[in-house]
Amino acid sequence: MSFNTFGKIFRFTTWGESHGPAIGCVVDGCPPNIKITEKDLQIELNRRKPGQSKFTTQRKEDDKVNILSGVFEGKTTGTPISMIIYNKDVRSRDYETIKNKFRPGHADYTYFKKYGIRDYRGGGRQSARETASRVAAGAIAKKVLHSKLGSKYKVVGAVTQLGILGCDTSKWDEKFIYKNPFFCPDKSIIKLWEKYLLGIRKSGSSCGAIIEVRAKGVPTGLGAPIYSKLDMDLAAAMMSINAVKGVNIGSGMNSAQLNGEQNSDEIIQKGKKTNFQSNNAGGILGGISSGQDIIVSFAVKPTSSILSSRKTIDKFGKNTSISVRGRHDPCVGIRAVPIGEAMMHCVLLDHYLMNTAQCKS
Amino acid sequence: MSFNTFGKIFRFTTWGESHGPAIGCVVDGCPPNIKITEKDLQIELNRRKPGQSKFTTQRKEDDKVNILSGVFEGKTTGTPISMIIYNKDVRSRDYETIKNKFRPGHADYTYFKKYGIRDYRGGGRQSARETASRVAAGAIAKKVLHSKLGSKYKVVGAVTQLGILGCDTSKWDEKFIYKNPFFCPDKSIIKLWEKYLLGIRKSGSSCGAIIEVRAKGVPTGLGAPIYSKLDMDLAAAMMSINAVKGVNIGSGMNSAQLNGEQNSDEIIQKGKKTNFQSNNAGGILGGISSGQDIIVSFAVKPTSSILSSRKTIDKFGKNTSISVRGRHDPCVGIRAVPIGEAMMHCVLLDHYLMNTAQCKS
Amino acid sequence: MSFNTFGKIFRFTTWGESHGPAIGCVVDGCPPNIKITEKDLQIELNRRKPGQSKFTTQRKEDDKVNILSGVFEGKTTGTPISMIIYNKDVRSRDYETIKNKFRPGHADYTYFKKYGIRDYRGGGRQSARETASRVAAGAIAKKVLHSKLGSKYKVVGAVTQLGILGCDTSKWDEKFIYKNPFFCPDKSIIKLWEKYLLGIRKSGSSCGAIIEVRAKGVPTGLGAPIYSKLDMDLAAAMMSINAVKGVNIGSGMNSAQLNGEQNSDEIIQKGKKTNFQSNNAGGILGGISSGQDIIVSFAVKPTSSILSSRKTIDKFGKNTSISVRGRHDPCVGIRAVPIGEAMMHCVLLDHYLMNTAQCKS
Amino acid sequence: MSFNTFGKIFRFTTWGESHGPAIGCVVDGCPPNIKITEKDLQIELNRRKPGQSKFTTQRKEDDKVNILSGVFEGKTTGTPISMIIYNKDVRSRDYETIKNKFRPGHADYTYFKKYGIRDYRGGGRQSARETASRVAAGAIAKKVLHSKLGSKYKVVGAVTQLGILGCDTSKWDEKFIYKNPFFCPDKSIIKLWEKYLLGIRKSGSSCGAIIEVRAKGVPTGLGAPIYSKLDMDLAAAMMSINAVKGVNIGSGMNSAQLNGEQNSDEIIQKGKKTNFQSNNAGGILGGISSGQDIIVSFAVKPTSSILSSRKTIDKFGKNTSISVRGRHDPCVGIRAVPIGEAMMHCVLLDHYLMNTAQCKS
Repeated sequence: MSFNTFGKIFRFTTWGESHGPAIGCVVDGCPPNIKITEKDLQIELNRRKPGQSKFTTQRKEDDKVNILSGVFEGKTTGTPISMIIYNKDVRSRDYETIKNKFRPGHADYTYFKKYGIRDYRGGGRQSARETASRVAAGAIAKKVLHSKLGSKYKVVGAVTQLGILGCDTSKWDEKFIYKNPFFCPDKSIIKLWEKYLLGIRKSGSSCGAIIEVRAKGVPTGLGAPIYSKLDMDLAAAMMSINAVKGVNIGSGMNSAQLNGEQNSDEIIQKGKKTNFQSNNAGGILGGISSGQDIIVSFAVKPTSSILSSRKTIDKFGKNTSISVRGRHDPCVGIRAVPIGEAMMHCVLLDHYLMNTAQCKS
Repeated sequence: MSFNTFGKIFRFTTWGESHGPAIGCVVDGCPPNIKITEKDLQIELNRRKPGQSKFTTQRKEDDKVNILSGVFEGKTTGTPISMIIYNKDVRSRDYETIKNKFRPGHADYTYFKKYGIRDYRGGGRQSARETASRVAAGAIAKKVLHSKLGSKYKVVGAVTQLGILGCDTSKWDEKFIYKNPFFCPDKSIIKLWEKYLLGIRKSGSSCGAIIEVRAKGVPTGLGAPIYSKLDMDLAAAMMSINAVKGVNIGSGMNSAQLNGEQNSDEIIQKGKKTNFQSNNAGGILGGISSGQDIIVSFAVKPTSSILSSRKTIDKFGKNTSISVRGRHDPCVGIRAVPIGEAMMHCVLLDHYLMNTAQCKS
Repeated sequence: MSFNTFGKIFRFTTWGESHGPAIGCVVDGCPPNIKITEKDLQIELNRRKPGQSKFTTQRKEDDKVNILSGVFEGKTTGTPISMIIYNKDVRSRDYETIKNKFRPGHADYTYFKKYGIRDYRGGGRQSARETASRVAAGAIAKKVLHSKLGSKYKVVGAVTQLGILGCDTSKWDEKFIYKNPFFCPDKSIIKLWEKYLLGIRKSGSSCGAIIEVRAKGVPTGLGAPIYSKLDMDLAAAMMSINAVKGVNIGSGMNSAQLNGEQNSDEIIQKGKKTNFQSNNAGGILGGISSGQDIIVSFAVKPTSSILSSRKTIDKFGKNTSISVRGRHDPCVGIRAVPIGEAMMHCVLLDHYLMNTAQCKS
Repeated sequence: MSFNTFGKIFRFTTWGESHGPAIGCVVDGCPPNIKITEKDLQIELNRRKPGQSKFTTQRKEDDKVNILSGVFEGKTTGTPISMIIYNKDVRSRDYETIKNKFRPGHADYTYFKKYGIRDYRGGGRQSARETASRVAAGAIAKKVLHSKLGSKYKVVGAVTQLGILGCDTSKWDEKFIYKNPFFCPDKSIIKLWEKYLLGIRKSGSSCGAIIEVRAKGVPTGLGAPIYSKLDMDLAAAMMSINAVKGVNIGSGMNSAQLNGEQNSDEIIQKGKKTNFQSNNAGGILGGISSGQDIIVSFAVKPTSSILSSRKTIDKFGKNTSISVRGRHDPCVGIRAVPIGEAMMHCVLLDHYLMNTAQCKS
């Protein structure tokens, strides 16, 4: 059972609602003697936090994280690491008018039907605010993996499609990703994206996105068949992110259109190095990492909170309509980039530890 | 930890290699007093078993299942249900020539790198033969859900794309699915598919496929946020199937291209019935079932065993090449239909029981 | 894996060190719509908190608990309930002199050997301060069970042996338990215990204790064979409490001395009521509750921190000696009573929910 | 959730009823490249099997075990190891007369109340026959631990009390244990035990026993606080064995009677060796192994099937009585020795792997 806990050995449990006093995360199973500071976490959290450009929600949150346990004299001790982020820029009154209505596309209806009660303020527990906790957990996983695997280990995410506009991933420019508010890897498309998203925003609409996350320097052998396959756990990890509706590993859904010859990633040995001639597999064969780059992409649906009026019902079963004003991301997919990276780190560390237990013990 | 176990309350553990004496499955957490016979299981297994048409592998396996425990006087007792299927049409000598070579696209390389040992005969544990166990477990889950939810509960899978040829899902004809060897729901495309796949087969090549699985009559409220979301568990379930590389829930990867207005599934109350005007969400909001049909699709890559010669290496790190003769499915995706259905049953039952525990207790 | 998480469906995760900023607990899987206030928790925590009589440590801790999530408008929402207790009366300098020494009977040596690092202040994570979190979790479980089972459900714990002095459990007086600082159920022994423990305390020594916890009004059918037996989980729960070295169910270790006739709890039906003529089984048969009172007892070893000098080594492997001054319980077993009750509530609720899932769905 | 599965990384799932076609076990998470033969398992199973002396049940079972998967060319492959033992000497008609009656002390009543159905033949799933599966799993764990830790690792169990007759554990003679049908470690008591148990048997009665299991050569650092403590998991493991009612670690329940000076196991360094002056802790401090011998003891209640008539009720709620003839162990505790050893191996291996994952990765 794992309601609010993710992971097997490296495990994190998140808690908190959008408009409660705080949100937080308990990381368990972290190896001891890893150097961690609040600053390490803050760097990652800052990449996700809202209000950083005109392309994201204007809710201002410091997302300042405090470590309450598990780190002693700057190092992890092997005991649970509890982290807390206080909620600050909360305007619960914004939600008074819609507290009895179910916003289409949101989980208002299903939470109410399931639990018979829901904290409607800012979406309560269903809010993407929960993902800040994942980013904090991911920052710890990243530190551990760097400590174990060295600097060759690296995870980079980017937005590769914004609404109807795909970018050219063959022009992937890692440095550029960090310099634009879209986490876009393709400099040539950036102007178009800006114009497109401003249009979306102005009209009070929203758009979806595709995010790609790549991991380099991952050792061969991570992933435990059959029901702890690496790709299975990555698919679960990404699908658990708010608003995600599809996940691809390597060629993903496009694999259906390939024939056997195209799909087989041929192998060639060069000295001590094993080279694959292509990477349709996304670095995973039979659920186990092959040493190639791990490549995962996922689609985020458009933000459900939009200006135009939509038909819906209220909690009393009456027909009504709703139009959501307020501070929303026109494309919530953009801020999913650091979240996808965080989940990649967490899954890889979990499998790294699992593999150590079973195969390196 | 769950290496070879799937599920949380309704759990199954599979074991066995392609060319060992048998494969099998232990189902745990099954509610008591459910009528189950070996025949119930056999019906489902027969839909997956090989050698049924010229479009699947010619390996002949009865896939005859025996129940060894957990059923007494025709009813489940609440104790583990152990099932066994003996392997029969095993030609291990076919694999002698390739026992030291890593077949590209298969998990030969990664199993060997991870474990330092592998049963090369027929792919050993990585063989899709393991999925027979899932179908058996799914048959039990199906019986339980029918017992709990009645006949309105129904799961139907189909192949909606065969290689480069998609079908028209608006022509979905459920009865037709059961009458053609492709599990194709669209009568109008069937001739084309036959011709296409015979061509693929003749040339010793292979192709991928997309499978769609729909569940009707699923109650509202299944799925436990955040890390036991229904879509998360379905994504994991489908991605764990051999050769699957992508999973969509509802509009899936296409969600990226929608805008907020298109994506919001509006809600209208008609008397006692809550109707959604569309189903981009695939029946799941915030990880919880909404009462709409659950719609999942997934891509299966082309069969990796093909006739044409591919470059590869052997276990000693030497460059070599490989050409796989033998009895293989030209499109392994076809037989994934009953497997996808089985996983859908298992996930839904698991969440049905979980929801009962937390919300109906 | 469950490092710092206890439970299967009703699960709690604890975190925090004795001298860190705070300790806390995340309860997951709690059913929705249960009325909970911080006051409900505080009542239970007050029974465990230190500094309440001359028979416990003089460390003064309010143990004031705050709920940070999962409760909305006074009711649980089905989402995780995060609770925090700030540490206040911390005197870390008391530990400076012994920071490199391993206190015999404590876990200093093993934590250091395992993790290579330890927070030595107040015992860090190994401190019994962690048990405050369990009491908070138990208070929630108690509320849920009362809501499900009504007032006939009741858990009462008591100290039945203090060092070498056992009490007469046939004189069990429930009201008296709440009126004496020993949680003693037998009024006739109380004077003797006072004198005995004051003597122990004066000499700077310590003594062990036996605690018995009884649960009434538990439904038949809780407990899931084979590896989720109710007695198995209760044994684990009690053994996980600091300093516990033995656990009995019903007649416990004394069962060895009974013969078959004595041990068989005969059954008689009286109208609608099934009566057992004795309760050697402690209310559990084959791992499943029988409807009789659940009776568990456990032994707590004497407090390891004592005044007299003991031989030990330091972290550099040098022989040395240690004498522990400071604020310690002369009999840490006394404060284990509310902890044992809390664990009983948690285990019973967990099995109540599990049983609902499997057998009442 | 873990209904019929034990363990976290090294996990086994058991299935099967006393009078079904077979019982069995699936071991998952076993490290690869460990030499295992069916003979290795058979040696251990032979120590538990019935019908070996006049002091155990006369049911004749070969308990011949077959390995169906997970071992290739004599070595484990890292995939699940499925084992099966067919039931042979089954006399189900013996149970016809009592099929509707609940045998006092047995789990007939609680299984029926929980599940509403039960396989009454030979106790069905509640039969101690299930423990053969544990012994098989334990045999694998033992092989793995010997491979990792060498021959200094050793687990030995013995009966230290038979009914009212304790033995002198200071006379512990390991070789003698293997030479007497009681697994008694004290040669001086053996004659008395023989006479005593023959008397019990003749009268159709039964008696309880205490079993002590010692593990030598266990590395420091096994056990993960707080809720995967080594002693917690050992207590759970032993309490899960049929008819066990109490578990002690080290001084166990007697700890209550010690004072702080007696209880503190002082530590002295001699060269490279850390020596504890006593072992009240049973080799575990704060839930972590200290490098001392692990010492666990547990009480097994007297066999519930006895000749003398006992009052009970039937499944229709009618008062009746029962007298159980047939083939029963006069002291079922004796055959618990290899079971206790097996559980010790399994728990230690599980923690060895867990510790590797978290602390040695």
